[in-house]
Amino acid sequence: MATLAKFDQSQHLRFSAESLHSFAVEVFCSSGLDREPAILVVDSLVDANLRGVDTHGLTRLLHKYVERVREQRVNLKPDIRIIRETPSTAVIDGDNGLGAIVSRFAIDVAIQKAKEAGSCWIGVRRSNHFGACGYWTRLISEADMIGFGVTNGPSNMAPWGGFTPYHSTNPISFAAPTGKGWNIVLDFSTAVAARGNMILFQAMGLPIPEGWSFDAQGNPTTDADEAMKGTVVPIAGHKGYGLSFFIDLLCGILAGAQFGPHIGRMYGEDDREQDVGHVFSSVNIEAMEDIEVFKRSVDQMIDEVHDIEPKKGFERIFVPGEIEAETTERRRIEGIPIPDEIIEEFRRLSEETGVPMPSENGG
Amino acid sequence: MATLAKFDQSQHLRFSAESLHSFAVEVFCSSGLDREPAILVVDSLVDANLRGVDTHGLTRLLHKYVERVREQRVNLKPDIRIIRETPSTAVIDGDNGLGAIVSRFAIDVAIQKAKEAGSCWIGVRRSNHFGACGYWTRLISEADMIGFGVTNGPSNMAPWGGFTPYHSTNPISFAAPTGKGWNIVLDFSTAVAARGNMILFQAMGLPIPEGWSFDAQGNPTTDADEAMKGTVVPIAGHKGYGLSFFIDLLCGILAGAQFGPHIGRMYGEDDREQDVGHVFSSVNIEAMEDIEVFKRSVDQMIDEVHDIEPKKGFERIFVPGEIEAETTERRRIEGIPIPDEIIEEFRRLSEETGVPMPSENGG
Repeated sequence: MATLAKFDQSQHLRFSAESLHSFAVEVFCSSGLDREPAILVVDSLVDANLRGVDTHGLTRLLHKYVERVREQRVNLKPDIRIIRETPSTAVIDGDNGLGAIVSRFAIDVAIQKAKEAGSCWIGVRRSNHFGACGYWTRLISEADMIGFGVTNGPSNMAPWGGFTPYHSTNPISFAAPTGKGWNIVLDFSTAVAARGNMILFQAMGLPIPEGWSFDAQGNPTTDADEAMKGTVVPIAGHKGYGLSFFIDLLCGILAGAQFGPHIGRMYGEDDREQDVGHVFSSVNIEAMEDIEVFKRSVDQMIDEVHDIEPKKGFERIFVPGEIEAETTERRRIEGIPIPDEIIEEFRRLSEETGVPMPSENGG
Repeated sequence: MATLAKFDQSQHLRFSAESLHSFAVEVFCSSGLDREPAILVVDSLVDANLRGVDTHGLTRLLHKYVERVREQRVNLKPDIRIIRETPSTAVIDGDNGLGAIVSRFAIDVAIQKAKEAGSCWIGVRRSNHFGACGYWTRLISEADMIGFGVTNGPSNMAPWGGFTPYHSTNPISFAAPTGKGWNIVLDFSTAVAARGNMILFQAMGLPIPEGWSFDAQGNPTTDADEAMKGTVVPIAGHKGYGLSFFIDLLCGILAGAQFGPHIGRMYGEDDREQDVGHVFSSVNIEAMEDIEVFKRSVDQMIDEVHDIEPKKGFERIFVPGEIEAETTERRRIEGIPIPDEIIEEFRRLSEETGVPMPSENGG
């Protein structure tokens, strides 16, 4: 079916991570962002594309972020600072900077404090969309630490039993180092499916899968238009709602950002500062276990899980973060597949800024 | 249906929390446990019954714990101690003590360290079944802190795509104080349904609900006998498996206990020390936000969620821990309902130990 072509990545043109990275950095710079923060933001976006998490990559977010930069709805020169701290906690005011810039600052603090005190919890207020949650926990884990991260966002999930949106698809992530050259990264949304996916189905006039969405009255729907007027379905029913509630409590209240419907939207007519909150935690593994023993045991757990026979319909058993690590390896060689309509967006950005289009892989 | 009578609590005799508490403490003492640790264990079990979490209360666990005490499969006089620490981390060796005794020690350390350093992470090794995870995080939250807790356990969940059990139904819990006289407590298992529930259906010869279990080949089943030979279904598919994997990594590897199928079973022929691991974390709220501001905001979030109109089929919207807080209030007045077969077990324990049966409520 022609309408499903955009899901078939083999049909997409491919671009090297490097060429996409340079392109996006130049686009940001010509839109008013300094080079150093531009690189931080693009690092996180290209990483998501490399890992196959295209919903959080350049492909979905570049033009949205650029729009926010151009309209100065984010602060291009934020004064990001620690406003309250103890040996193992810090609260960071992001001063309405781009989420990736604020989060990079926070992760550096998280790693430093865990080195000194053993572990820490970091609250971040006055931030914005930070991309993929697992990017930040993985950075912590690359310092031989356990990484934990959550964020809140604009409301689109109804409390269990209601039909009015209150919380967001608030994701949670944990990461840990291994001895295998890639890290364990668990990163999941508290909703069954992201709104972004529903928008794709809506654009194609296709019904969405069962179990993804409630309509505006809180009834299950497979109609994409009704879904867009309704709310997302939390994973595991009341459990996913409860987790989303608690993540909002951590990010919106412990970290002192906004929560529930008080969070501003990323785009559209809403002119409020978003005031998104994030919470990170880091544990220095050496504080609790010799790092070599730790990594050997994690490798043992991975190997034992891999040795389990797959059941009918499955070819292999994966551990969290493994598929993304393999995708990264493949996309570093084969390039990142970009759907035609995103290439069109890139072309528009290229024309508007004068930054040359990225070159196709091997092209 | 007569077979469903055991689910109908209105048919059950009721006992006051106090009389059950005294009964259980005396039973433990006459089985060889000292009074002080006996009280700690029974505190946690009666609390679960008060909250309506009967799967983790006296009603399911008393005779199992007593059996382990009598057979000295747990250490009755454990030397629980910190074996590694930094200002904001500690690793505790539980010396094969009962999980509740070891966990109480760990929670005290967690609260003390968070008071001094702002936050901390605590790993516990060589422990045993600790009852309801939310009991421990709530204790932390009662010190005006954020509480986090996870535990691993004997394997009964297959990695996603496999049919051989590896991880357990590893639960996760978060808790936070409010200004409402009860605390937010989120506490859920990474499995859709506990094995205990399936045992009930099996005993009654009834099919189990869809979505609870895989059979021994990894196919969905509603046959209770097949379910007991198979594995539990993780919540939200691969997401629940991933969470269970990571919890096992934290408890079994970061805390240095056993993991996966290397954990001993609570009862049966298995004579190994269980070597269960727990991980707790605590964040002193004052370190990050004024406690009064924090509680006022949490109350606002609760009130706003309560104000949301319920959809068809729902009477009210609850926040995490609210149902359990209301159940506690009710059961403190009306007593704790006990199914007949559990009363029989109590009677057996009473005869074996000479401890008088608890008196019925108002009886």
